[in-house]
Amino acid sequence: MANEWATFGADLHLELRGPRLRAGLMDALREAVRSGRLEAGTRLPSSRSLAADLGMARNTVADAYAELVAEGWLTARQGSGTRVARRAEPRGAEPRGAEPRRSAPRRAEPRRSAPRHVEARPGIGSAAAPPPRALPRPSTPAHNLKAGTPDLASFPRAEWLRAYRRAFTAAPNEAFGYGDPRGRIELRTVLAEYLARARGVYARPERIVVCAGFVHGLMLIGQVLRSRGVRDVAIESYGLGLHADLLTGAGLGTPALPFDERGTLVEESGPLGSAGAVLMTAAHQFPLGGALPPDRRAQVVDWARASGGFVLEDDYDGEFRYDRQPVGALQGLDPERVVYLGTASKSLAPGLRLAWMVLPASLVGEVVAAKGVVDWVSSAPDQLAFAEFLGSGAYDRHVRAMRLRYRRRRDQLVAAVAAHSPETRVSGIAAGLHAVLALPPGTEQEVLRAAAWNGLAVQGVNEFRRPTVPPTLDGLVVGYGTPPDSAWQSALQTLCRVLPPTPGGTETDTW
Amino acid sequence: MANEWATFGADLHLELRGPRLRAGLMDALREAVRSGRLEAGTRLPSSRSLAADLGMARNTVADAYAELVAEGWLTARQGSGTRVARRAEPRGAEPRGAEPRRSAPRRAEPRRSAPRHVEARPGIGSAAAPPPRALPRPSTPAHNLKAGTPDLASFPRAEWLRAYRRAFTAAPNEAFGYGDPRGRIELRTVLAEYLARARGVYARPERIVVCAGFVHGLMLIGQVLRSRGVRDVAIESYGLGLHADLLTGAGLGTPALPFDERGTLVEESGPLGSAGAVLMTAAHQFPLGGALPPDRRAQVVDWARASGGFVLEDDYDGEFRYDRQPVGALQGLDPERVVYLGTASKSLAPGLRLAWMVLPASLVGEVVAAKGVVDWVSSAPDQLAFAEFLGSGAYDRHVRAMRLRYRRRRDQLVAAVAAHSPETRVSGIAAGLHAVLALPPGTEQEVLRAAAWNGLAVQGVNEFRRPTVPPTLDGLVVGYGTPPDSAWQSALQTLCRVLPPTPGGTETDTW
Repeated sequence: MANEWATFGADLHLELRGPRLRAGLMDALREAVRSGRLEAGTRLPSSRSLAADLGMARNTVADAYAELVAEGWLTARQGSGTRVARRAEPRGAEPRGAEPRRSAPRRAEPRRSAPRHVEARPGIGSAAAPPPRALPRPSTPAHNLKAGTPDLASFPRAEWLRAYRRAFTAAPNEAFGYGDPRGRIELRTVLAEYLARARGVYARPERIVVCAGFVHGLMLIGQVLRSRGVRDVAIESYGLGLHADLLTGAGLGTPALPFDERGTLVEESGPLGSAGAVLMTAAHQFPLGGALPPDRRAQVVDWARASGGFVLEDDYDGEFRYDRQPVGALQGLDPERVVYLGTASKSLAPGLRLAWMVLPASLVGEVVAAKGVVDWVSSAPDQLAFAEFLGSGAYDRHVRAMRLRYRRRRDQLVAAVAAHSPETRVSGIAAGLHAVLALPPGTEQEVLRAAAWNGLAVQGVNEFRRPTVPPTLDGLVVGYGTPPDSAWQSALQTLCRVLPPTPGGTETDTW
Repeated sequence: MANEWATFGADLHLELRGPRLRAGLMDALREAVRSGRLEAGTRLPSSRSLAADLGMARNTVADAYAELVAEGWLTARQGSGTRVARRAEPRGAEPRGAEPRRSAPRRAEPRRSAPRHVEARPGIGSAAAPPPRALPRPSTPAHNLKAGTPDLASFPRAEWLRAYRRAFTAAPNEAFGYGDPRGRIELRTVLAEYLARARGVYARPERIVVCAGFVHGLMLIGQVLRSRGVRDVAIESYGLGLHADLLTGAGLGTPALPFDERGTLVEESGPLGSAGAVLMTAAHQFPLGGALPPDRRAQVVDWARASGGFVLEDDYDGEFRYDRQPVGALQGLDPERVVYLGTASKSLAPGLRLAWMVLPASLVGEVVAAKGVVDWVSSAPDQLAFAEFLGSGAYDRHVRAMRLRYRRRRDQLVAAVAAHSPETRVSGIAAGLHAVLALPPGTEQEVLRAAAWNGLAVQGVNEFRRPTVPPTLDGLVVGYGTPPDSAWQSALQTLCRVLPPTPGGTETDTW
């Protein structure tokens, strides 16, 4: 991936700085204002953004902005950003000398007529308006602690854009054509290296098939298993209904495996006995949160070996483990019997639609055939961008940063629950982006109603219970990775408000 | 889409030029070489590429390169690009003054040990090696005139990258999450406008479903029709086998419609009588090339109305029409009975995996449900980038430019065939990226063998004939859009060489 060309940009990026570049940038900006292409009042991008766009050092841009502010070409005001000063307006609409350095209240842009017949909506958008006496209940939740989505506000936009640009610019023409159904070789090559290093996966590029998400991968595997004559794919007692539905849609039965306090039971005497495969979240059970204990990991792989079955390992958030090294993938135990499914949906963002399978050699041909003679699904530029993002180390950096951030949130969640509802046990906290808050038997629905009333979107464990599994647990599945930083504290506060209160005490308000 | 921020970059892009910027860039490059971060021999990006990366004027970069070549920091050689000169090597591996300006034979990169046990392959990669006495037949074709892929070398990289950057930077955080299964509203909005304007499609955003290509769309429609109880989808006598296979895979029969010299016959007395839908390339039959005559367009829509059936309109290359205004989409005749399927695969590139359906109101819900509760397939940033690309006019500009280019190629094809094989009739030339060269009865296989022998990849019309349709035509399907400009003339020359020779004359060689 990282050919000379691509590496070059990265090196260069660090070095486009210095007085002459600053002066050149200032010339360009002055000329843009002078010519009227940058109108008075136009907001400039932040120095960080522009620096990223131009491959310049941020200080070079910041210095150029500062000098142009000092010269009166631009204005800078806290909260309003850097804008083109009004004195620079070439049309003479403002008298010259009209306070270029001090901020003036922002006015309507010249030459944009205000829309007519727009009724004033008092109190909305006006900071000075008093709050309404009684707020109506919000129709959409104000707070979101549903599990399954990472903090989208933390998506590493600048790094991704850089990777996309590099990869796109270096892409050979054939990358724009119909591609290999396994996905771009550049991506499979760096994925193989990454998965081996980070997840202990035995991965070779020729065994990897890129897909548009876990759902796409599971669909393909389901098709292949069905056409091999498999009747049942065993699933865990708790999990996403959608995954079971996909298997059912492929014509497969989905018996649920029982569980005990140590996790899912993988006895041959249970549903595994008649199943051709088992779908497991072995590193971090979704949603209950535990890791499958080592003896059961060995046991399920032994079952697969002995029966000729397959373990489908859904490694959706394996990168996020807080208390020790990540639990390695089950796949490493037997790459010929475990299908490994990974995704960028939790580590980066679901909107990218990037995921991958690492297949036993015996399944590669069939899965590729199920996918098609060419890659009908995944965009080649995206795959190349992700290859560059992985290969450059940006992915590792992002995962490390997010791990710290999520861990901090997890700690805050645990502390807040302990303070507000000491009897509530928080489990599944060693990994991932969600935790389970155990509730007194029979109270889940009540708490969920209170959450809804308080504008908090959150799910109960029973929403993830397979229909055939009797209800024995009550709890909340709290996705602490979901909100942006700005919304996290208020979401947490609302959560605490709806939990069973501290026994014998009033609710504290220490936020 | 185009907020202040995004527009700003575009304006600025034109203006980052001038002596001080050049000097600053030179400083940065010198420093990178001096520090060893840019090693001797490293190839620099082209001035065009680097300029695009840095948002600078190309001349600024080219001038900086030229000055650094003159100063001895870089070398420039035709065909080898601009490289870091060896004298700049900071490790003293080379004696100073070792001909920085003249090209030295490229050596192994320092500090990268050559792989062991790699056998020397004489004659490969060495410009000085004499050509082998007799070249073996190439195992992969040297020339490609297979239809179905546009000229990938003409992909508008700079424009696309600009659109991607703008859209990506302006994207709201939620765009990185799980999305609407219909696709991004931004894209559906501009698509509706574009399709109405350019293809006469009655399109409203809420009836559009974005998909990952025609194949994905057809799969979804096939599923929906099958679950509605449809048994047969009629298809044209000639077409892509893959499309028929997809319908078969969805459990549908695919009776072929007969045809005459005016095109496909859409009589109710034929296979349409029992079909629930018909798949048609109405604007430009693939591969034979004609447009469905107006009376038959009306007839097939009448059939759909009367029978409650659907016309699936595969508008794969509707933008490329040379002799008059594009033939409008059939869908405009009855948006409630025609499913319109469009794609960026021919107009831009298949590697993007971007396509769209415009659906009758009665099908929207079912198609969306078949696609999933969220968009499991299409990357949100790509959709936003394409929305920006369309909305900014870049798509129209690209289509216009490609139309001119493909038309020129078509004219050259027609002229060359007329000169080399005057009896060969070229048909289907009014539109698209391919034409059909009629061959004397029974000669198709022979000509294909000659083509293969000459390293020319091209297909015969009979490769597109449905198995149930008796062979009555012989001909070549020539994709003149496929090769890059640099390969076009030699591909055309090779094609002429394998055509039936001029009667009574020797082959001319006027290329």
